[in-house]
Amino acid sequence: MSRYWSPIVNQLSPYVPGEQPEIDNLIKLNTNENPYGPSPRVIEAIQRELSDDLRLYPEPTSMALRQVVADYYGVTPEQVFVGNGSDEVLAHTFFALFQHARPLLFPDITYSFYPVYCALYRIDYETVPLAEDFSLDVSRYEQPNGGIIFPNPNAPTGCLLTLAEIEQLLTANRDSVVVIDEAYIDFGGKSAIALIDGHPNLLVTQTLSKSRSLAGLRIGLALGDAALIEGLERVKDSFNSYPIDRLASAAAIASFEDDAYFRQTCQQVIDSRQRLTTELQALGFQVLPSAANFVFARHPEWDALAIAAKLRREGVIVRHFKQPGIDRFLRITVGAPHQNESLLAILKEMV
Amino acid sequence: MSRYWSPIVNQLSPYVPGEQPEIDNLIKLNTNENPYGPSPRVIEAIQRELSDDLRLYPEPTSMALRQVVADYYGVTPEQVFVGNGSDEVLAHTFFALFQHARPLLFPDITYSFYPVYCALYRIDYETVPLAEDFSLDVSRYEQPNGGIIFPNPNAPTGCLLTLAEIEQLLTANRDSVVVIDEAYIDFGGKSAIALIDGHPNLLVTQTLSKSRSLAGLRIGLALGDAALIEGLERVKDSFNSYPIDRLASAAAIASFEDDAYFRQTCQQVIDSRQRLTTELQALGFQVLPSAANFVFARHPEWDALAIAAKLRREGVIVRHFKQPGIDRFLRITVGAPHQNESLLAILKEMV
Repeated sequence: MSRYWSPIVNQLSPYVPGEQPEIDNLIKLNTNENPYGPSPRVIEAIQRELSDDLRLYPEPTSMALRQVVADYYGVTPEQVFVGNGSDEVLAHTFFALFQHARPLLFPDITYSFYPVYCALYRIDYETVPLAEDFSLDVSRYEQPNGGIIFPNPNAPTGCLLTLAEIEQLLTANRDSVVVIDEAYIDFGGKSAIALIDGHPNLLVTQTLSKSRSLAGLRIGLALGDAALIEGLERVKDSFNSYPIDRLASAAAIASFEDDAYFRQTCQQVIDSRQRLTTELQALGFQVLPSAANFVFARHPEWDALAIAAKLRREGVIVRHFKQPGIDRFLRITVGAPHQNESLLAILKEMV
Repeated sequence: MSRYWSPIVNQLSPYVPGEQPEIDNLIKLNTNENPYGPSPRVIEAIQRELSDDLRLYPEPTSMALRQVVADYYGVTPEQVFVGNGSDEVLAHTFFALFQHARPLLFPDITYSFYPVYCALYRIDYETVPLAEDFSLDVSRYEQPNGGIIFPNPNAPTGCLLTLAEIEQLLTANRDSVVVIDEAYIDFGGKSAIALIDGHPNLLVTQTLSKSRSLAGLRIGLALGDAALIEGLERVKDSFNSYPIDRLASAAAIASFEDDAYFRQTCQQVIDSRQRLTTELQALGFQVLPSAANFVFARHPEWDALAIAAKLRREGVIVRHFKQPGIDRFLRITVGAPHQNESLLAILKEMV
C-alpha cells in the first residue's frame, strides 16, 4: 500500500503465473510449453535480423507479420491484430470490447487471468458453471451480457467445443462480442477463424507460445471483423506504438512460413498426449478428454497436492489449482516422450 | 466506430509515431534513433540465447535484468521496474500513479503521448506553459495536483533542468508523484536517479531505445521508491505476466555491461550535436539549447513545412509538429556525421 497509488491499485489481485524455476534438469510440465523448440528457420530468421538496424524502431503496425498471418488463415491484414503475447492481446480486448453496462460472462472454471483483467478495468462479470462432466454448455450463455469469453479448448480442463456449438453461441448473442481464446486450438481443435466472415461479433485470439514454441518471444494474435480489430488498434496506439520488436516479428513470420515443421511437432504432441492419457488411465487416473497440450487428471485415492509434492521431489513440476471443484486435479503438460516416461515412472511408485 | 466497442474507445485520440519508411537510403532524422548500432556484445548476447529454450517463457519478474540495472545505478532491484519500451512503462505509470482526484500537470509543449494516456485512463490534466524561451519553470508547478510528469531534457525542445530545480519541485510536491521521463538524459544531463533515496514521490523513467541503440527491441525502465515500483508491478501483473522476452532481456543486460561502448557512442552524438548546432546557426537558424540527441530549430524566414518538404524530396526525413507555438520549428535527430553533412548541404541550397 502507498498513498501515491491510484486507489484502483489496492483492488487488484494480480495473476500468478506458473513457476519458471532456474534449476537445471527439472522436467517442467507446469506451464504448457512445447517440448520441441521452434523451427530452425525461426532461428535463422532471427540471425538475419541481428544487425545495427536494432537501433531503429520496428514498423509500428507490424504489417508484414499481419499480412503473413492473414495469408495463412485466408483473411485480410485488417482482420488481424498482433500483441506482446496473447496476454497483452487479451488485456486490450477487455479494455476495447468488454467495458459495457451488462456483465461479461465466462466459465466458473477457466483461465484465471480473466477476473484479473476485470479488476484492472472495473468490468462487472458473472461466471457460468461448467456441466458436471466439465464440458461447456453454450445454452447457459443465452442470457443478457456485455460480452462472452472462454478458451477453446478450455483451460485448465482441455475440453473442446465444436464449431457448430460456437456458431450457436454467436447467433444467440449478436449484440455482444464473443471472444474465443484459442491458445491451445492447434493441438486437435478446429479454429473459429472459419466463422469470422459471417459473424462481426466474433474475435478469435491465439498465441505463438504453445503450438509454435515461442513462449520466450511473446507474440499473440487476434483475428476478427475489421471493426473489432480497429477498436484494438485504437487502444494499442493509446498504450504503446511499438509492442512487437524486430526479432519477435521476424521469428513469428518464419514460424508461419514453415508449416511442415509446425504440423509435425503438433502431431508429435498429440500422439504423446494420447499415450500419456492411456498410461495415466492405466494407473487409475480419471483424465478429461483433452484437445490441448496438457491433460487434466485426478486420481480417486491420491491427494493431488501429495502427488505434486512427490513429483517435485523427484524433479518434475506440474500445476495444481487451489480452486474448489478442481482442487483434486493436476494439470500436466504433455512433454517429450522421455519426460512423460519419467513422470509415469514416478507415479507408478505410488501405486 | 462500432457498437461493439467499449464507449471509451470512441474518445481515444491515439498517438501517431514518427514515420518508419520502408524505403532504403533515406536519411532518417525523424524518430531520434541512435546513428550507431548497439554494442557488439549485445549481438553476441542475443546469439547465445538463440536455442530451443525460446520455447520456454521468460522469467516473469525479469530479475536478472533488474539486478544489473540496480547495480549500475547503485539502487536495489526492488527500486527497478522494466517494461516493453518506455511507452509501456509510462502507460502503467499513468494507470498506477496518476488516477487521482486532482489533475495531472505537464508542460503545454512536451511529449505528445501524455494526453493520449490521460484519455485512455480518463485522467484529468492541466498543461503548464513553458517560459518564453521554452525552458521549464518549476515554480509554475506549485499548485494543487494529482501528479506531475515531464521529460528531462524536455521533448521536443531538448531543454534541460538541473537536479537542484528537480529537487525543488519534489520538495514542493510531497503529496503527489513526480515522474521525470529521462528518455534523453544520457546525452548530457544528470539523472534524477541520484535523488530517489530522499524522495519517495520520485519516479524516473528511462529507455534503451535512444542512448543504448535498442529501439528495435523495446525495453524501458522505471526507478524509484520500492512502494512506487510495487504499484507498477501490481498493474503489470494484472496486464501481462511476461512483457520482456528472452532476447530483449539478454540484450539489455549486455548493454549495461558494456559501459565503455555506451559512453563512447553517447559522446560521439554529443560532439555531432555541437557541430550540427553551430552549422545550423551559421545558416541563420535559431537552435534551442539541447541536451538530447536532437535539436529543435527554426529559421526566421523559411517556412518549417517547406524545409521539411524539400528535405524529404532530397531523401532526408525530419519531424514537424503542427502544434501552435512550435509549428515554425523542426525537430532534427542528430545523425552520424555524414548524415548531418547531407542535411546541411541541402539546407545550404535554400540560402
